[in-house]
Amino acid sequence: VTTPVVGQVSPGTPEFELAPGFRAAATACGLKPSGNLDLCLIVAAKPATAAGVFTTNRVKAAPVLLDREVLASHAGSIRAVIANSGCANACTGAPGMADAREMAALAASVVGCAPEQVLVLSTGVIGKRLDLAAIGRGVRGMSVALEGVAAPARDNALSAPEPGGLVVEVGGAMAARAVMTTDTRPKTASADVSIGGRTVTIRGFAKGAGMIHPNLATMLSVITTDAWISPSVLDAALRAVSRRTFERVSVDGDMSTNDTVLLLASGASGVVVDEARMPEFVSALEELCRSLARQIARDGEGATRLVEIVVSGAESEEQAHAVANKIACSPLVKTAIHGGDPNWGRVLAAAGAAGVELDSGRLALFMGAVGDAIRVAEDGMALDFDHTAAARRLRQDPARIALDLGIGTAVAAVWTCDLSADYVAINAEYTT
Amino acid sequence: VTTPVVGQVSPGTPEFELAPGFRAAATACGLKPSGNLDLCLIVAAKPATAAGVFTTNRVKAAPVLLDREVLASHAGSIRAVIANSGCANACTGAPGMADAREMAALAASVVGCAPEQVLVLSTGVIGKRLDLAAIGRGVRGMSVALEGVAAPARDNALSAPEPGGLVVEVGGAMAARAVMTTDTRPKTASADVSIGGRTVTIRGFAKGAGMIHPNLATMLSVITTDAWISPSVLDAALRAVSRRTFERVSVDGDMSTNDTVLLLASGASGVVVDEARMPEFVSALEELCRSLARQIARDGEGATRLVEIVVSGAESEEQAHAVANKIACSPLVKTAIHGGDPNWGRVLAAAGAAGVELDSGRLALFMGAVGDAIRVAEDGMALDFDHTAAARRLRQDPARIALDLGIGTAVAAVWTCDLSADYVAINAEYTT
Repeated sequence: VTTPVVGQVSPGTPEFELAPGFRAAATACGLKPSGNLDLCLIVAAKPATAAGVFTTNRVKAAPVLLDREVLASHAGSIRAVIANSGCANACTGAPGMADAREMAALAASVVGCAPEQVLVLSTGVIGKRLDLAAIGRGVRGMSVALEGVAAPARDNALSAPEPGGLVVEVGGAMAARAVMTTDTRPKTASADVSIGGRTVTIRGFAKGAGMIHPNLATMLSVITTDAWISPSVLDAALRAVSRRTFERVSVDGDMSTNDTVLLLASGASGVVVDEARMPEFVSALEELCRSLARQIARDGEGATRLVEIVVSGAESEEQAHAVANKIACSPLVKTAIHGGDPNWGRVLAAAGAAGVELDSGRLALFMGAVGDAIRVAEDGMALDFDHTAAARRLRQDPARIALDLGIGTAVAAVWTCDLSADYVAINAEYTT
Repeated sequence: VTTPVVGQVSPGTPEFELAPGFRAAATACGLKPSGNLDLCLIVAAKPATAAGVFTTNRVKAAPVLLDREVLASHAGSIRAVIANSGCANACTGAPGMADAREMAALAASVVGCAPEQVLVLSTGVIGKRLDLAAIGRGVRGMSVALEGVAAPARDNALSAPEPGGLVVEVGGAMAARAVMTTDTRPKTASADVSIGGRTVTIRGFAKGAGMIHPNLATMLSVITTDAWISPSVLDAALRAVSRRTFERVSVDGDMSTNDTVLLLASGASGVVVDEARMPEFVSALEELCRSLARQIARDGEGATRLVEIVVSGAESEEQAHAVANKIACSPLVKTAIHGGDPNWGRVLAAAGAAGVELDSGRLALFMGAVGDAIRVAEDGMALDFDHTAAARRLRQDPARIALDLGIGTAVAAVWTCDLSADYVAINAEYTT
């Protein structure tokens, strides 16, 4: 196995495009009262392979149930992804399931494929039914744009609610905007990896927010590649990577009713990624997903900075993850970081509450970036450290807290954000 | 077994006294920069039986380790409890353990007992060493008061830091004040129960705060009774009650490094509570502890109201508790309650993330007090409810959210508070 060469992972370029073999369009069909982009359609020129990881929440939204069904039968021949914001289609029962199927059928009708070849994503308010008339208008408008007809595309089949008809935008960057809810910015990442001397492209976008532990503001991501990858290898790659990236962005490890990450492979590059080549692909995919995960954490509601919690010296990665996650979930730790308070006691107390065995007398705690960190506690006790310097470390973006458990060699990182008064203001508003 | 007659549980009376057989004094010995009461001593006239429940946090403070030791050997002959605020004596290693022993010895020297007959409680800043000189002065001052010498008691053995010497206050209400940290008010409760035609008295106080999931601001409680109860029956009673009261006050079920609940029985009433009488005693004890637990929740940092989460229709009490706890932990739910937003979707999503099997199509959600609640969701879907009326219910104190899982008959309640911008302000301050 050759060492993979991963090109620069570029986050958030305005010119973001999906991987070759995929096209995207977006529109504002009226699901968002703001009139912002709220619907996008991603079309694969030829049937693509696909894999998905979904929320572990026991309350699963209709699109999640539908996509699991689709991937169980058609993971080798996906033609489109249709995604909307403004409405999560969650807690909508059997009618909501029928709506999700109808949304897939609307996309299928313009793409020219079976509804079972379409994946559906929804994010937004829970408990509201989808406005299928609006989605129908939007789909027809985008289909025109995706066929290359000159903009502004108009929907002549139905009278549009606003004068001038629907504005349709083309391109991956616009799809990334169309899934935003409380996100303050679109999240995209691109990676190129050399596999066997040929370049494979990976391009993905995501949306998050909701104080990271996404709830109303679900975490969604669509990642595309031009490699040819079988559904089973694709599935294994996505699961391995998701565990170390998207599932490490969390306040408390929860997932919302709608959380979904989709990975689609067009094969347009002609490069085959089989099990032997998988490590190289996975390495690039992980770098890309880590970039998206960090962008999601950084854009948590009310956040002023990204927070990275690294736990090392653990007996297992699971143990390290459990401790890091507990620290990342602690509102006391998150408010201390917000205030630039090097409150090491809160960090150790959170670690002790993680529900894993640890030796409190071996804990060592650091604050600050790698190579610039200040050791604030050792052997479970505070050192006589420079509070002003430590406070300065916590005000960095990202703010980094590293805890060594002193009982093993495993490491895990979790990303979160600080907890500000703005978070309370955003979430105390009347939003239902 | 006769039905126990529990007298009114009176919360927070300024005249609060401990149960017959116990005396208390408090002083401000200088552990708190504010000069407020920070040390108290509770003395049993004769050896009392005692039981304790302690934090499950893997990082345990020195007084917790010491008290477990004391109760393992001397649960039948406790003479005193000494408690301080201002310093948690946590994460202080072996020197902190020696300090806790010295604190017990100081109390023992004035009470006239062995150090192994003294229980120790500490709360406050983590990582700081105890000021034993200050505690020594305080103990000697209080001993004078407890012997009935006229106030103002003075410490003549050492020069006190402030002119006029130490002010020593006598009584249970003052002990309740001396353990306060970020608490805005003392928390006390009294219950009388008729057992076999004779009255048994139970009197307790507690401190909490720290957004309830107490961290720097540990949860401590001391409960006294004049019943005669063997250590083993006392222990069983405290464990049973604590699980349904103090352990139901939580943001995320965590306990701090110092959390401790002590129950002491003087036997002064002459009423023996054996295993046969235990249900009657437990019933009264539970009512008293529920009052203290709710007072702690109500006084969460930045809280504007008490929040009661009731989960019914569960397969087991454990399941109901897990779901209720998850809802109570959700910052999205807590901010919605703060804003009076009947955001039922957040509640269902939190329930789904509790890690227990549930049928999302059977969930029914209510907001408001018993007999006045509004049904906002049924069969996992929103009803067309009156948002303004539901918002009014959430602005009540206590605000009550009831979720029926529809799969069983078990019930559990959890108490928390709303999440306000003040919480962030309080906790983002430089406090280490």
